[in-house]
Amino acid sequence: MLSETSETTRRRDQDTVTKTDERQALDSKLAAIYEPVANDLLQAEEVFNQEIGSDVAFVEELTSRVRRYQGKRLRPALLLLTGKAVGNVNRDHHVLAAVVEMIHIATLVHDDVLDDAALRRHVTTVNAEWGNEASVLLGDFLFTHSFHLAASLESTLACRLIGQATNRVCEGELHQIARRGCFELSESEYIDIIAGKTAELISCCCRLGAHFAGASDEVTDSMTEFGREIGIAFQIADDVIDLTSSEATAGKSLGSDLLKQKTTLPLIRFRQTAEPDVLERFRNLFEHPESADRTQIARDLNQSDALSYAHGKAAEFAARAARRLDALPRSSARDVLESLTRFVADRVA
Amino acid sequence: MLSETSETTRRRDQDTVTKTDERQALDSKLAAIYEPVANDLLQAEEVFNQEIGSDVAFVEELTSRVRRYQGKRLRPALLLLTGKAVGNVNRDHHVLAAVVEMIHIATLVHDDVLDDAALRRHVTTVNAEWGNEASVLLGDFLFTHSFHLAASLESTLACRLIGQATNRVCEGELHQIARRGCFELSESEYIDIIAGKTAELISCCCRLGAHFAGASDEVTDSMTEFGREIGIAFQIADDVIDLTSSEATAGKSLGSDLLKQKTTLPLIRFRQTAEPDVLERFRNLFEHPESADRTQIARDLNQSDALSYAHGKAAEFAARAARRLDALPRSSARDVLESLTRFVADRVA
Repeated sequence: MLSETSETTRRRDQDTVTKTDERQALDSKLAAIYEPVANDLLQAEEVFNQEIGSDVAFVEELTSRVRRYQGKRLRPALLLLTGKAVGNVNRDHHVLAAVVEMIHIATLVHDDVLDDAALRRHVTTVNAEWGNEASVLLGDFLFTHSFHLAASLESTLACRLIGQATNRVCEGELHQIARRGCFELSESEYIDIIAGKTAELISCCCRLGAHFAGASDEVTDSMTEFGREIGIAFQIADDVIDLTSSEATAGKSLGSDLLKQKTTLPLIRFRQTAEPDVLERFRNLFEHPESADRTQIARDLNQSDALSYAHGKAAEFAARAARRLDALPRSSARDVLESLTRFVADRVA
Repeated sequence: MLSETSETTRRRDQDTVTKTDERQALDSKLAAIYEPVANDLLQAEEVFNQEIGSDVAFVEELTSRVRRYQGKRLRPALLLLTGKAVGNVNRDHHVLAAVVEMIHIATLVHDDVLDDAALRRHVTTVNAEWGNEASVLLGDFLFTHSFHLAASLESTLACRLIGQATNRVCEGELHQIARRGCFELSESEYIDIIAGKTAELISCCCRLGAHFAGASDEVTDSMTEFGREIGIAFQIADDVIDLTSSEATAGKSLGSDLLKQKTTLPLIRFRQTAEPDVLERFRNLFEHPESADRTQIARDLNQSDALSYAHGKAAEFAARAARRLDALPRSSARDVLESLTRFVADRVA
């Protein structure tokens, strides 16, 4: 019989394998979904790699690590698919797709510093291998390269829109920090926060995709809203996944958000609907996430409608996004955008 | 008689007072030097404050702290003075002066995270008061706002030049990290590093100042070189000051660069000219900066020509910069630029 310690290790390894399998299945599924813009994604990747090339060997070492962070590529894919659904994808789209992915990766590099994360997409993070100093500077390096790349376009429009979006992303992240530890956060303030920190950049991708394919102002506005709504759906789903991962459901961690006292939609719903004794247990856990007994709360949470409520909200925003697509003519790219609205709300990893 | 502990405290307090006095004297001296663009600096400050305004109370709290970081304002002053020396300062100059100061402050905010600094310009740092997470995000917020502001100009030229400069600043900083702990760093690699991390942005300021005042390509190029050279002089002087501050000369810290195993010009010269026994002591201190005996090395260093050699190099770059000004007609702004070349090389704080 295995000792408790090796049993724990075995389970953790099993969780990691399951997570890896889930992720790989997800990546293949997405690659198939992105098929209409597969070639454009490759061209964007080439622009990306060219922009961050450096003569300094250490910089090359760092950037080759972050090239392996490439994950769902949701932002460049949405930019290219929107362009394709509106008209033709051109060189500007490839450049801008590289820009938005670079911004996203810059935020991931800084997130890993803040979270003290050791792994991302199964590779050792920059901070774990080279320290926080290199990571903060690498994130800055990616930010400034993304703006430099955006400035290679003819007009300042893309720079302005991207600047505006990233301003709001940072503001949203700071807003979230300010409200951390706030047990009573309302649903509407939560939506405000994620509309900033996540949906703004995704919305900007769809706006840029449409505009640079020559869309009318009306269509561009519809696609901007499409991006905002799919972005909100995406983040709500992410916050649900944080609580439904195998570790969390077993009560082992109950999710990293709760550990960091981030109040997400499922937790807001749980708080609003819990009976007094459950609410007291929950408040205790929220205030002392490291020391409280998690197993009972994990059970309470799974018995409540909190997760399905949040999932329903994600589906609602996704459905609203799907209706925005009525502004576009039927095409395979539009079909993909529609299937992505379902994908982001229903995904499990 | 004072006990050793309170004597140490008294000395430290005395050092702080001396530093504060030195800084305040410096600020008044600079304010007098900047007189020809005093009003333009105020207008740039207004643009700066307007750009970083936010509806999120926490963001306002953070940004009002960094507004107090305002120090030498060397970058906006150089941009405006160059503009004035070439022709007329206009609205674009005010915007760009705000942009370069914002970028500079973003790098300071991130530097304070990396250095775990508690004070900057006599106020508590953002990281010391609100933690590293808020500081990393605030730095990002300032970076993205600076690019957003640069994109408010009509052409993409400023965005491209600023993007290029900040790319090199980050690359220079990463290059420095890669070479940290390298006892044998050569003078030319040191110059490469500071040309990137410090001189690129200052050079960009002078280029922008000249270009947006309608300078010819030839004059713009001269001013770009002027900025590069005054920037290198500035950084060498900074690295000398790190070793000549009252704390360092007493052997108490021997400067923060040495503590972080950063090889600066005076240290390179010291290594190159030291007798074998001194060299051994120095290598031992460099490799174990926390544990080695500093008093003897402080004495060795002060007896060597390392500090005067580095100071001489700073003066050399400053003199080269001054000669670039021959490309400009005589004016009070040009006189100020010339006096600044002496100021940056000769300053003591």
